[in-house]
Amino acid sequence: MIYDFTYCNPTKIYFGKTALTHLPSELALYGKNILLIYGKNSIKKYGIYDQIISALHQTGKTVVELAGINSNPRYSQVLQGGQLVRENHTDLILAVGGGSVIDCAKGIAASAYYQGDAWQHYWVEQGPIVNPIVPVASVLTMTGTASEMNTGSVITHEEKKLKLGRVFPFPDMTPKFSILNPEFTFTVPHLQMVSGIADIFSHLMEQYFGGTDDCTSDYLLEGVMLSLINASRKAVKNPQDYEARSNIMWCATMGLNKILALSKQQDWEVHMIEHQLGAYTDCPHGIGLAIISPAYYRYIYQHGLPKFVRFAKNIWHIPADGLNDGQIALEGIACLQSFFKELGIPQHLRDIGATEDMLPEIARSTIEGGGYYHMKSDDILQVLKNCF
Amino acid sequence: MIYDFTYCNPTKIYFGKTALTHLPSELALYGKNILLIYGKNSIKKYGIYDQIISALHQTGKTVVELAGINSNPRYSQVLQGGQLVRENHTDLILAVGGGSVIDCAKGIAASAYYQGDAWQHYWVEQGPIVNPIVPVASVLTMTGTASEMNTGSVITHEEKKLKLGRVFPFPDMTPKFSILNPEFTFTVPHLQMVSGIADIFSHLMEQYFGGTDDCTSDYLLEGVMLSLINASRKAVKNPQDYEARSNIMWCATMGLNKILALSKQQDWEVHMIEHQLGAYTDCPHGIGLAIISPAYYRYIYQHGLPKFVRFAKNIWHIPADGLNDGQIALEGIACLQSFFKELGIPQHLRDIGATEDMLPEIARSTIEGGGYYHMKSDDILQVLKNCF
Repeated sequence: MIYDFTYCNPTKIYFGKTALTHLPSELALYGKNILLIYGKNSIKKYGIYDQIISALHQTGKTVVELAGINSNPRYSQVLQGGQLVRENHTDLILAVGGGSVIDCAKGIAASAYYQGDAWQHYWVEQGPIVNPIVPVASVLTMTGTASEMNTGSVITHEEKKLKLGRVFPFPDMTPKFSILNPEFTFTVPHLQMVSGIADIFSHLMEQYFGGTDDCTSDYLLEGVMLSLINASRKAVKNPQDYEARSNIMWCATMGLNKILALSKQQDWEVHMIEHQLGAYTDCPHGIGLAIISPAYYRYIYQHGLPKFVRFAKNIWHIPADGLNDGQIALEGIACLQSFFKELGIPQHLRDIGATEDMLPEIARSTIEGGGYYHMKSDDILQVLKNCF
Repeated sequence: MIYDFTYCNPTKIYFGKTALTHLPSELALYGKNILLIYGKNSIKKYGIYDQIISALHQTGKTVVELAGINSNPRYSQVLQGGQLVRENHTDLILAVGGGSVIDCAKGIAASAYYQGDAWQHYWVEQGPIVNPIVPVASVLTMTGTASEMNTGSVITHEEKKLKLGRVFPFPDMTPKFSILNPEFTFTVPHLQMVSGIADIFSHLMEQYFGGTDDCTSDYLLEGVMLSLINASRKAVKNPQDYEARSNIMWCATMGLNKILALSKQQDWEVHMIEHQLGAYTDCPHGIGLAIISPAYYRYIYQHGLPKFVRFAKNIWHIPADGLNDGQIALEGIACLQSFFKELGIPQHLRDIGATEDMLPEIARSTIEGGGYYHMKSDDILQVLKNCF
């Protein structure tokens, strides 16, 4: 079933080895004041920074920089960016990096001209947009979040120990344009690469595991899962395999530009749990997701059994011979866990900086919810213990 | 592999039972002069026309109508529409109907202010846009072409006996908004419904049968094919099955809004042949495609064997046991033909108004081309004879 929806996603995507050559013509469409934001200087290593600065100079821009955005971008950085926007009358925020940097850019774009406590209004209360928005564009150097083609902005309030996601209404906050060159991801370290892959796979599952009807979006999500599994296995063997890296990059964008989620009942509880895990441990987002997912799905699969059987058969090709539905579903989840292991991802929370005494705090502070089953704090704690 | 591409598709889609309620708020964004275009009065039967007129009056519009657009829209109608646009200073062309009506609207939008022979410039020479474009929007009442979310405009020049497709550059000619209510398709006669389904399936295959690399878009196309097969079987049994009709409608839009074609090598020769078949017989577009496709793919499959084997296995679940690749591929094509037969589609050109003496003319006037194999006139004639 396709339930009622409205969709509009005007982000212009430039994809491929020549993508960055389009930057000057796009920059020409905006005013002269640019806020350039990026992460921990890795963009300076591979010539990306120089190419971007060259395009900015070529088009006569005045550039202010905000560097050092964390992998879990902080609300203090959003405030800092907002101040730079106001002081410099920024016409365009150009984010160069992965999802963290782009999420931070959108946070700045939304909150720079908000009168009052933007954290409270936009992230806690998920309030409507009530102030002018600064345009955002991106050059992607790490793939996973699809922030380059959606309206999401996940921000960590370090003092409050809260990591909250906001999906702004489409199309107000979609990047105006995004530049995706798979070569820029060649040098991403292994752990970050597989973290990105796990994040993509988690997005696909969280959109997939909901609903009991026949829905075109589910078939599309399965298609991306199958492509991602094939491409990831190749990329892990050879990180400079352009075919594999380009497929992964596009799987990521399609995986959460929301066109595959239309009309879908979804279940984002794994992300909710990981957000709090991230707030307590600062672990790579996708690694947290990969550890939580198998434990979470084993905890809830019986409440959505037909979908987990379908997942096992269509994604992992589990033969039905001699197994009952519950066994087939569990085989599928076991394959998922093996896949993450094969990518070289740690298998337990204790391997990524969590301690046992954190678990009740993480469970308590996680937003309750779910899809086939509604998770309460006690359920969340049990899932955390099961993968500790 | 994802090869270099640029993509931007800003069409706003309103989908579902409540979709038409959004019409007044969208109309409010445009000036007061509306050109309303539609087909053969079927929209007047089911209350759609009254609802649209009511929304137009509610928003204070001045409406000029162009009715009677053919299922193969004619260039003379494009000229007629252009004159109405110029005379009435049209601010928005609102197309109500299927792909034919929307294609005609885009033809009018592109050519109304062209100085000179628009047919020659835009359709024959596929020239760049050099004049102001009139905004287009649509309310869909028959599904198939995805014209509601792409830039295509297929027009028949009746005097020249030429049916030519033009894909205008994105996003210049995408509809500003499109309203998709699956209920509006409930009353589409059986032959038109299955013609639409065959058109969708053909679009998917024509984007799929090209390339020898591992490409995410192929997995997505397979997903839509599988969904469409399931939904079509249900809709043929019960035309008022909302679940099935809504999935078909969304398969159609996703099937040719071009997001699944990105970076794909493609083969549109089946459409090229059908366009000329249509110019000579005026047969329903999808019916022509359904008759030509199996004959065409049997003619070329050996040149792209691995993809046809993949098609047989992934779409039609042909087991590999004891068959060689050629046999598996042919089994897949046989399943495709059986599927069209199961939908109640005629199997031969002679059943839909073609005569044997037309075939050389159709072959001669078809644009040569292809994917895995380059088709020349003699090849095209052989394919036509094989399905006559």
